[in-house]
Amino acid sequence: MSDDKSTAMLPEAEFVARFHAIGKERYHHQHPFHLLMHEGKLTRGQLQAWALNRYTYQSSIPIKDAAILARTTDPAFRLAWRKRIIDHDGDGTHPGGIEKWLKLVEATGLSREQAIRGDGILPATRYAVGAYVDFVSSRTHLEAVASSLTELFSKDLITLRVDRLREHYPWLSSGLEYFQGRMTQAPDDANFALAWVVKHARNREEQELALGALRAKCDILWAMLDALYFAYVVPGWPPPGAFQPLKASA
Amino acid sequence: MSDDKSTAMLPEAEFVARFHAIGKERYHHQHPFHLLMHEGKLTRGQLQAWALNRYTYQSSIPIKDAAILARTTDPAFRLAWRKRIIDHDGDGTHPGGIEKWLKLVEATGLSREQAIRGDGILPATRYAVGAYVDFVSSRTHLEAVASSLTELFSKDLITLRVDRLREHYPWLSSGLEYFQGRMTQAPDDANFALAWVVKHARNREEQELALGALRAKCDILWAMLDALYFAYVVPGWPPPGAFQPLKASA
Repeated sequence: MSDDKSTAMLPEAEFVARFHAIGKERYHHQHPFHLLMHEGKLTRGQLQAWALNRYTYQSSIPIKDAAILARTTDPAFRLAWRKRIIDHDGDGTHPGGIEKWLKLVEATGLSREQAIRGDGILPATRYAVGAYVDFVSSRTHLEAVASSLTELFSKDLITLRVDRLREHYPWLSSGLEYFQGRMTQAPDDANFALAWVVKHARNREEQELALGALRAKCDILWAMLDALYFAYVVPGWPPPGAFQPLKASA
Repeated sequence: MSDDKSTAMLPEAEFVARFHAIGKERYHHQHPFHLLMHEGKLTRGQLQAWALNRYTYQSSIPIKDAAILARTTDPAFRLAWRKRIIDHDGDGTHPGGIEKWLKLVEATGLSREQAIRGDGILPATRYAVGAYVDFVSSRTHLEAVASSLTELFSKDLITLRVDRLREHYPWLSSGLEYFQGRMTQAPDDANFALAWVVKHARNREEQELALGALRAKCDILWAMLDALYFAYVVPGWPPPGAFQPLKASA
């Protein structure tokens, strides 16, 4: 009976509810680094460290999405998914998300070149980003798609963030265009990915793999903020070679 | 002139000295987690977290070494390097380093099964270990070999550690066999690898790549201790799903 129960395929509503439950528990909206950010308690140096490290993540998103494109022989899937690469790389005329993130880096007072060179990035950031690219490259196509479902939760976080950044750090205002774009892109992408996962998870085992993929992705986002918090907020230390905020801006 | 200087091949003694300088600056012997360990200031719960997370690293070493074996068509290199796999996996009769590390886990009061299952491992530990396996798999063979040169510095650290563990944590004594083995294995391995790197780095650019590989490896070891320190020492927090020491042992 309990075996039967634990291996029975979840009805769609229950399957979808479990993704939302994972987000509630593990998504980085409740990470203390974000809480401090939204309360206006981060210094300029801490926001610089965040923008710089997060650039490593942002600039790897099209690589991650290209790896997902490369997983499937289904042209319809690729047609839908390639939008993500355009969103981040731009179309040659309109800037994409990476360019917009560089504007945010500049608004913090760092140069775009520093972000592009990757000077002072926390090794832990690079390992987490590498783990994400590796995950979508080596797991099943279903898990790769499911790992994107953190986007189900990003609109609420971004809406709050833009409000709070404008309020507490007005000097950042020229760098917020990235988030404006994501408020429509992310929900569209998440709706497509969720419908695809629901349709393509064919049994309970695959449903569990998809849920595990979202947990794994939440862990990656969380680990990046842990590393920032430790290096730049609590009395920890940036590792040798990492970005050091100027004393004046701390 | 300065161009000429910066691209001139380093004489052997200078090349070797630079590896040692990197160790002095970046090797994890000076990480505060180790300093606390050696001062007897870690709780049993913190040592459990260390043994558990470090098991993830230990158990991946033969995978890393097999990836290095797979990089070369030189049977003589493979003959010398495969010793490392035997050292960690054992020979079927004598236990290898992985089995000995499990004895250390058990001496802390955790079960070997918990370590083998990987329950509660910090995601950041897994990402760092993954980055190491990825590094030796995707960089040049020279860089893969050079990344092992942290073993140049491990004998001094292990000698000190065994002394201090016996002194401060006598209940760990039944678990220290791993370190005894490493006191002869690591220097032998490091001497072979160093001689090989010196011989096979054919120009300054390759010498710099080899030096960078040792830096990258130091970053990996350091990042694993940062994650432990943040989750279990400073007033940080283990991420969702990670090992939680029992209150009684903290």
